[in-house]
Amino acid sequence: MKLPLGYRYAATYAGIRKVEKDDVALIVPDQPARAAAVFTRNVVQAAPVKLAKQNLKISKGKVSGVLINAGNANCATRTGERVALASCRALAKALKTRPEYIFPASTGVIGVELDVKLLTAPFPELVEQLDAGNFQSVAEAMMTTDTRPKIASEEVQFADGTVRVAGMTKGAGMIHPNMATTLGFVMTDAVADAEDLEEILRPAIERSFNSLTIDGDTSTNDTVLLLASGASKVKPSDKERKVLQEVVTWVMESLAEQIAADGEGARKLIVVRALGFKTREDARKIARAIANSPLVKTAIAGSDPNWGRILVAAGYAGVDFDPNSIDIEMQRVLVCRGGLAANYDENELKQKLDESEVRIRIVNKKGGKGDARFFTCDLTEGYIQINGSYRT
Amino acid sequence: MKLPLGYRYAATYAGIRKVEKDDVALIVPDQPARAAAVFTRNVVQAAPVKLAKQNLKISKGKVSGVLINAGNANCATRTGERVALASCRALAKALKTRPEYIFPASTGVIGVELDVKLLTAPFPELVEQLDAGNFQSVAEAMMTTDTRPKIASEEVQFADGTVRVAGMTKGAGMIHPNMATTLGFVMTDAVADAEDLEEILRPAIERSFNSLTIDGDTSTNDTVLLLASGASKVKPSDKERKVLQEVVTWVMESLAEQIAADGEGARKLIVVRALGFKTREDARKIARAIANSPLVKTAIAGSDPNWGRILVAAGYAGVDFDPNSIDIEMQRVLVCRGGLAANYDENELKQKLDESEVRIRIVNKKGGKGDARFFTCDLTEGYIQINGSYRT
Repeated sequence: MKLPLGYRYAATYAGIRKVEKDDVALIVPDQPARAAAVFTRNVVQAAPVKLAKQNLKISKGKVSGVLINAGNANCATRTGERVALASCRALAKALKTRPEYIFPASTGVIGVELDVKLLTAPFPELVEQLDAGNFQSVAEAMMTTDTRPKIASEEVQFADGTVRVAGMTKGAGMIHPNMATTLGFVMTDAVADAEDLEEILRPAIERSFNSLTIDGDTSTNDTVLLLASGASKVKPSDKERKVLQEVVTWVMESLAEQIAADGEGARKLIVVRALGFKTREDARKIARAIANSPLVKTAIAGSDPNWGRILVAAGYAGVDFDPNSIDIEMQRVLVCRGGLAANYDENELKQKLDESEVRIRIVNKKGGKGDARFFTCDLTEGYIQINGSYRT
Repeated sequence: MKLPLGYRYAATYAGIRKVEKDDVALIVPDQPARAAAVFTRNVVQAAPVKLAKQNLKISKGKVSGVLINAGNANCATRTGERVALASCRALAKALKTRPEYIFPASTGVIGVELDVKLLTAPFPELVEQLDAGNFQSVAEAMMTTDTRPKIASEEVQFADGTVRVAGMTKGAGMIHPNMATTLGFVMTDAVADAEDLEEILRPAIERSFNSLTIDGDTSTNDTVLLLASGASKVKPSDKERKVLQEVVTWVMESLAEQIAADGEGARKLIVVRALGFKTREDARKIARAIANSPLVKTAIAGSDPNWGRILVAAGYAGVDFDPNSIDIEMQRVLVCRGGLAANYDENELKQKLDESEVRIRIVNKKGGKGDARFFTCDLTEGYIQINGSYRT
């Protein structure tokens, strides 16, 4: 994995979560990085989300340190704002920067006070440990019910040299458009200002984290941050910036797919594509309704080619269409033609549905050019087991 | 159970479903009954839904026979419309009435051709069997993954005599506002015309079947029919009609609660009440988001008083509110005061959450008078087991 230049990382166990597993981590650019971020749209927002927004505004999109903790969302608590503020101050001191240049992000349980001393105690040790090689440790430290770390990287040749993009994320449950309890950090070493990054991030989010649903719930702490260290010294031309936007999108799509594939209890990644609807927004509604349907997700868990449930989910997506113009494919097998059962070998398809990646395509033959994709996972007993006893 | 006068019932096994359990049933008023009905809003609608609408229109809200089958939804099939039409014709002949006076309703699997001969063969036998005492047999015949029949009745004294209301329904999975794969039949012996019944049905549906969610999916066949036989000879006054409306609502609320309590795999009925929001519609959105949250429903399955998930679900309901003005009660125990953890005995509450009925209240202290209630059930491994292998 070729990592972007100009970043160092560190992670340690601070005692915030009960199991002894790293729960505090830092991402530190060598020089203040340029930044753009997207946050949860939930009415209930955690203290670190509010403070990160405020800090980015004051610093005019500059970040000298990202402070991540798992095990406690620092949300819906009496001391939340004080804890967020104090921890940013303490880290700023340790990094010799201003508190407004710290970007805080928390994930974990809601409604439990976060002990600021636990959080800040390891800062000197963490700063000591900072190293470009600790990238994966940070991805591991922010895991909650994730079963594996989620990382992705790409590099691209521009006229003036190579630019690298690498990202990490956490996911599992509560993922839905508008990014529930997701933290995502994407780093590049391109030279870019906050405005460039904003332009790159918005469409990339739309096609990745906002095209993802695990259980329809959204959270209080969701944050995706895009940083540019400038350490490659390569400033993309206008044309190259479009390419950079694509590369960032690939990295983020890969992260989103990894989240879906590792949904709580999931055994299968499901990719739903809706094609031929009037607008992209219509196609998104259709793909989302299918990806979000517990009946579709349980059918896939059972390798049941139950296309009726797919058609029904499309039917309540809030989009008008003629059912007789709908074709549905599962694993490239046509299961529904013009709203009716197609001829296919059910046993053969069942076997194909046992694969770890299931592709569903729904095509409106009488529609338009609206095309969208959604990522989700199958719904298994494991989801219930994990979520029926998360806190206990 | 005191049943409304003027109706007879019959049910038998026609071989539509694989297991030998009644799958065809009739509800037959002694004289053509007045009728009002509500249907699914899914874009994909089954043939019997389309035909029932059309028949009601032609007959001007009169029904001489209700034809119900389980085991096959008669939806998304090549022959669907022909089968629906032919079966109404055959039943009309057997009942000596016009085909437009037959009200068809189907539930079961989608996309599989329904054999019209199987469906119509038992009509002579069914007509023979018609009896006022077979009410419950019909409720049993329409069960799919239901574990028990769902029936309710009330009676009320008016100036001119007693009026009775009785209803039956089926539910289980795929229930959501706008009534997915629900069939509901409510009979009264009051004297009422189709217009009266329409006025009674709309608000009753809103407070019962449309305040119900099992898994967020909605279906192609949902139908709730309200019939008035007039056999009591009691014509309610304007004032009494308001009372009749209440009584019908009680019966339908009871049916909706029974559906929720018997949701696929459910062990607990969950009643969510949202109070103090700006409008009733806002309160409904909040209650629905909570009732529909897999994370809330799995927490209740595990008797986990995880109020953070309730607050979070409210936060993404699409309603603006101040989290600091929110109180949340579970089983009448205050668990969240002003958006923060309240003091309560967690072990004691855990025990209360083991009960078969769980009440959640969310109150906005700075809001308005918007008040709404939603019914749902906990989400257990059983749901996954049922839906991962429904067809196989």
